[in-house]
Amino acid sequence: MRARLIGNLPVLNSSLTRSTQVVAASTLSSLSYPRLLCKSSDHHPTGILRHFITTSLSQSLLRGRTYKSTSLVAMASTFQPELARQPPAQPLPQATNGGKYKLAACQLSVTADKQANIAHAREKIQVAADQGAQLIVLPEMWNCPYSNSSFPTYAEDIDGGITNSPSLAMLSEVAREKKVTIVGGSIPERSGGKLYNTCCVVDKNGELKAKFRKVHLFDIDIPGKITFKESDTLTPGGGLCVVDTDVGRIAVGICYDIRFPEMAMLYAARGAHIICYPGAFNMTTGPLHWELLQKARAVDNQIFVVTCSPARDDHAGYVAWGHSTVVDPFGEILATAEHKETTIFADIDYSEIDKRRLNMPIESQRRGDLYHLIDVARNDPINSS
Amino acid sequence: MRARLIGNLPVLNSSLTRSTQVVAASTLSSLSYPRLLCKSSDHHPTGILRHFITTSLSQSLLRGRTYKSTSLVAMASTFQPELARQPPAQPLPQATNGGKYKLAACQLSVTADKQANIAHAREKIQVAADQGAQLIVLPEMWNCPYSNSSFPTYAEDIDGGITNSPSLAMLSEVAREKKVTIVGGSIPERSGGKLYNTCCVVDKNGELKAKFRKVHLFDIDIPGKITFKESDTLTPGGGLCVVDTDVGRIAVGICYDIRFPEMAMLYAARGAHIICYPGAFNMTTGPLHWELLQKARAVDNQIFVVTCSPARDDHAGYVAWGHSTVVDPFGEILATAEHKETTIFADIDYSEIDKRRLNMPIESQRRGDLYHLIDVARNDPINSS
Repeated sequence: MRARLIGNLPVLNSSLTRSTQVVAASTLSSLSYPRLLCKSSDHHPTGILRHFITTSLSQSLLRGRTYKSTSLVAMASTFQPELARQPPAQPLPQATNGGKYKLAACQLSVTADKQANIAHAREKIQVAADQGAQLIVLPEMWNCPYSNSSFPTYAEDIDGGITNSPSLAMLSEVAREKKVTIVGGSIPERSGGKLYNTCCVVDKNGELKAKFRKVHLFDIDIPGKITFKESDTLTPGGGLCVVDTDVGRIAVGICYDIRFPEMAMLYAARGAHIICYPGAFNMTTGPLHWELLQKARAVDNQIFVVTCSPARDDHAGYVAWGHSTVVDPFGEILATAEHKETTIFADIDYSEIDKRRLNMPIESQRRGDLYHLIDVARNDPINSS
Repeated sequence: MRARLIGNLPVLNSSLTRSTQVVAASTLSSLSYPRLLCKSSDHHPTGILRHFITTSLSQSLLRGRTYKSTSLVAMASTFQPELARQPPAQPLPQATNGGKYKLAACQLSVTADKQANIAHAREKIQVAADQGAQLIVLPEMWNCPYSNSSFPTYAEDIDGGITNSPSLAMLSEVAREKKVTIVGGSIPERSGGKLYNTCCVVDKNGELKAKFRKVHLFDIDIPGKITFKESDTLTPGGGLCVVDTDVGRIAVGICYDIRFPEMAMLYAARGAHIICYPGAFNMTTGPLHWELLQKARAVDNQIFVVTCSPARDDHAGYVAWGHSTVVDPFGEILATAEHKETTIFADIDYSEIDKRRLNMPIESQRRGDLYHLIDVARNDPINSS
């Protein structure tokens, strides 16, 4: 078996089959990511070539079950699963208490009275905490009717701190009082003359740990069914959100964000245990897509997913589907609601993630020789996290 | 508003907000793909910058509904949706007959008698064609029991042509006889001393239009439930498969391939109308994931999906879930089966794809400033298609 050079990479000659040529070509194209290649010796081209030659020789001997382990080693190296996520996927971080805790999602009724909404949310959070919840998730736009005319009126200056944001102030107070982590659904945020659909994550000391602005705005037009354009008033956020808390590494998306599988895939690659999607699907897409999408994100990424919707108000301008739900990494529903106001609880155990990934090792089965998903912010020389 | 240079790219200065800095940095990182940037003037960095400045100025004026169209233009340029797929997504090709036709999926009973399996499949294809089907899909491993001990025995040399592959010969004959396109499920293929799980796509003239080898092998171990390792005997394929036919642009995946969302995303970006997944899920993952995954691939990519399973045989070594299904681009089920042998039919209309993409323009809402999905083969200087 002879090798020749393309650029400065050894590539096997044309007597090889088409599939091996694909591997060689992919080795060449991986040079587009020199920074990544330098990070890990596993990715070094000559290492890939060595694996490749070993694999080709061993596979030519392959006649049955006795070569099982050789074949599996070959898969792991030849098909470059580690290149399917760039930068490579991070391992799950250690979670406190072995990653076991009780989660609550408060499917709140929302009114036009902002102060009443805040007081009501506080009460429901307190009750959930008293029932043992350590992570409490609120709905999208829980302090405000979901409408473009309401967003500017109800918006708060979160960066101005608790004196300028009564909603954040409540979240901070009740989190500290009850010693719970809160993924504070979302509220309209005013910042620099723009409006955002923003989630605040508050830790058990009442500190604002992260702020996430919805990155995919809800602009859809299904004639006769549902038409909404958040971009009439809102500006999309500039980045994703993963935050380490007492209840693990939490990722946040808001409602329409759940339609974009890339986002959940990046979150899993960033080592998140759970993705929280405050959201308010509607009476058209809710029945068809709400449960489907959260199960798909959970199963594809072998990760926990929780959604939290406002309760349904049939007299509202925008009628929410409700059905807040908690899904485990195998796509099984741990808790779910109907459309009325309620709080759902689920016992979370992050060891389920390891178990499912061991049973079905999707990450090491990906084909980095066929596709790469790039996390632009992590991959960026200026803004890398 | 002043601009400064980073590398050879103009980047706006630090008086801008964080989110605008992210855009600028992303513009820089897009230089990793110079070949792509050169392909389309829309991607030229100065073009992006021009859009960006326009956007920033217009957004600073944004006060409400009157700026709707400006805001939408701003989203399309600032957040670089065209970079979310690399190379950029291809438009849907024109389909004959306006993309309207009848599809059939034959959920076949499979026995240990290969000649009987071939004769039986021929008969079911003839019946489906006589009932008006123009695209006929068969199950995974329809000529062979699904087991590692069977694959070597039942394997055929497809590259050797119809004289060496009785299964291909039958597909070719019946396709020409009935003037139908057949996505021939899969059979074990022997090639170069290796075995593959391979799908043949045959056109209405009986020509072998494409051959696809399963790229993600089914290696899972759920103790006490289902353990299988295709890699004990099979070798994964080296590339994806999209083929233009009389019934549109067809993409193919086989069974476990459906678990990898990247593959369906690449197929949609290659302009496929429909993804055909011959597959044989089992009694553990079938009830939980089979329908879920096909609906998710359909909805996320706004594309048709059809799955075709063998009928269930409770006495087989591997018991298939059955439930062959056709899903439309909104995730609605057009036709589905229980577990027994049957043929399901669906009236396909590719204009549904355009309609759903118009209602919910996910492609133009993607965030190319946050994530890029690379199609390695299309992006490759040697193997680009």
